[in-house]
Amino acid sequence: MNKLSVIRSTKVDSIATVRLSVETSGEGFFEITAEVARFLKQIGARDGAVLIYLRHTSASLVIQENADADVRTDLVTALRRLAPVNAAWVHDVEGPDDMPAHVKSMLNGVSLQMPVSDGDMALGTWQGIYVAEHRTSPHRREVVLQFCGSCADKDKATD
Amino acid sequence: MNKLSVIRSTKVDSIATVRLSVETSGEGFFEITAEVARFLKQIGARDGAVLIYLRHTSASLVIQENADADVRTDLVTALRRLAPVNAAWVHDVEGPDDMPAHVKSMLNGVSLQMPVSDGDMALGTWQGIYVAEHRTSPHRREVVLQFCGSCADKDKATD
Amino acid sequence: MNKLSVIRSTKVDSIATVRLSVETSGEGFFEITAEVARFLKQIGARDGAVLIYLRHTSASLVIQENADADVRTDLVTALRRLAPVNAAWVHDVEGPDDMPAHVKSMLNGVSLQMPVSDGDMALGTWQGIYVAEHRTSPHRREVVLQFCGSCADKDKATD
Repeated sequence: MNKLSVIRSTKVDSIATVRLSVETSGEGFFEITAEVARFLKQIGARDGAVLIYLRHTSASLVIQENADADVRTDLVTALRRLAPVNAAWVHDVEGPDDMPAHVKSMLNGVSLQMPVSDGDMALGTWQGIYVAEHRTSPHRREVVLQFCGSCADKDKATD
Repeated sequence: MNKLSVIRSTKVDSIATVRLSVETSGEGFFEITAEVARFLKQIGARDGAVLIYLRHTSASLVIQENADADVRTDLVTALRRLAPVNAAWVHDVEGPDDMPAHVKSMLNGVSLQMPVSDGDMALGTWQGIYVAEHRTSPHRREVVLQFCGSCADKDKATD
Repeated sequence: MNKLSVIRSTKVDSIATVRLSVETSGEGFFEITAEVARFLKQIGARDGAVLIYLRHTSASLVIQENADADVRTDLVTALRRLAPVNAAWVHDVEGPDDMPAHVKSMLNGVSLQMPVSDGDMALGTWQGIYVAEHRTSPHRREVVLQFCGSCADKDKATD
């Protein structure tokens, strides 16, 4: 029932790393798909994988539907139910939304990787890449993007 | 108390990518461990890592016990409790099982990576790799497998 | 609002893999950040990524706050609420804490990757890497660490 198809192989000759700064306006999902695609184009990425890493403990990375915005509204609701504000948390010195934010960050995670072929990410039709902000107030979030694989134009990948 | 042991090093000279089509019969866990192992054997993988990526937003990838099938039954139950069908979701145009499926996909994730040594995945004794289908009806799910590392027989890794 | 900055590139010439044995004292979080950093130093890692993989189905890997220990206390509480002991699990032959441990392992995951630049992990200020033990009794947990990228001193990366 399962079948294998389309094998490619290539050299592995490049690692390129960039820091992406994302300004959030408070709780919700902030799409970074275009920024990741821009990075891959900028370095001339061909085949390999892109690692996306979030340097925070009260936000997370999520790959989810980028068509109907209602989906993200419901995802926020679902996370609030899983980690409610009023749950007698021991850690409350940073505000009532802080500990729920840590729980959501743990569940969703802060590390993602995606295959890249001929410069294109293997995203599904409905998939977008999001920074999920779990704090109530706006934050500046740092994301590290790292491509490992082959680059068409090596000159573009230097500092 | 923690100790480091057995260091290996090698050249990194190959990237091989394949698309795997998985037919699900509705909600539940569908093991793909054998397919991933077959891919690694087919390309002559030696040392490196295999990236497993699912191109969907209402299914997920899970590494879990492959011994007692009751575990998977309980995992389905646990997910239903975390993201119930009747929870007044805003997004319901695709059916009552759709939004819960998105929540489960977000929590479990769609991206996994596993070390490979001498062609063998670093799977623990009880670990299997699963596509978790969260929709009620059968679906065809696309998984991308990508190995990055060294291959014993480079000829096998070409198109 | 989002901006790209600081691109680096390098050669990819090394894969180094190590097994780390972690003794847990029962349910809770056990930090392995120092062990991962020691591994990277030992092999002379420069630029690339480190893959962290846990070979178990009733424990997980978590990147979370390493400042206030109350956060980890609350994370344990949150996980107990999401996967309670008394929930009429079908799979109960290994004790009442076993099936909840599988659920927690599924939600948190067992695979993480982190960028490395000039030998340093891209950890945020408050981030630590933890093995989360979900069983009540002490266990020995096996973690595989794998660096892929460039090493300053190739001699250090051999067996």
